[in-house]
Amino acid sequence: MFKKIIIVMYVSACVISTACSQQSSNWQIEIKSVLMQQQEAWNRGDIEGYMQGYWKSNSLLFTSGGNIQRGWKATYEKYKKSYNTKEKMGKLNFSDLEINLLSPESAWIFGYWELKREKDNPKGVFTLILRKFMDGWKIIHDHTSSQSASGG
Amino acid sequence: MFKKIIIVMYVSACVISTACSQQSSNWQIEIKSVLMQQQEAWNRGDIEGYMQGYWKSNSLLFTSGGNIQRGWKATYEKYKKSYNTKEKMGKLNFSDLEINLLSPESAWIFGYWELKREKDNPKGVFTLILRKFMDGWKIIHDHTSSQSASGG
Repeated sequence: MFKKIIIVMYVSACVISTACSQQSSNWQIEIKSVLMQQQEAWNRGDIEGYMQGYWKSNSLLFTSGGNIQRGWKATYEKYKKSYNTKEKMGKLNFSDLEINLLSPESAWIFGYWELKREKDNPKGVFTLILRKFMDGWKIIHDHTSSQSASGG
Repeated sequence: MFKKIIIVMYVSACVISTACSQQSSNWQIEIKSVLMQQQEAWNRGDIEGYMQGYWKSNSLLFTSGGNIQRGWKATYEKYKKSYNTKEKMGKLNFSDLEINLLSPESAWIFGYWELKREKDNPKGVFTLILRKFMDGWKIIHDHTSSQSASGG
């Protein structure tokens, strides 16, 4: 019986391990595509499309420059208010994404953002925390900073 | 044989589940104590003690106000340079910590920081990502923002 337990546990571990390694070949592509879809949506002026990358939950936590939005709806409203024209939205570019898996269902990203606009060119860095849900990877937390800001 | 596999898998799941729930009674205390030890170290003017909360690795990633430090040593040097007197260090207070487990060995924290100093009172928010190592929970990424800063 003991030998059988060992065999079954070994087989289970192998099945899990294989599943994990198959996942790891996909997770970077899957996670990166969330951000690429956001960038594309932003650059066609589609804030609702951009918001699809975020967890549609009251627990979504978004902070930028010390301001805090709690919940998907509040975050969406803030974006709509702050970027109510194509000129304000400008062209968004994410770059140098560092995507780190924490578990098969959680990850974090550090990256750089830049808005190319007629009058200015704001840029900075962001930290994202993502979880894998039934409908794919979603950002559950976004901490964005501007490079011109002075930190604590 | 098939029935035995099911039983063994069920027993294994129960063992793992029990281990996890035992952990979950401890993880919040363990993680919170990392930050409390940092706060105490800071408030006795001990930057090296404060730095013990961070992952002692070249991969530590620290960002504050758009500035980026990579590695424990660079982060330590930046802190020593920016806070080279007791007056600049002031009294640090962390508050309203939201500690979220992502897996048994990874977590993230959102919280508020404040420095009480004679001449000013800077404050803001931070996001931390932590991993559980052999020697306990360590911050592997810190994204700090000042509330006075304007974000992107």
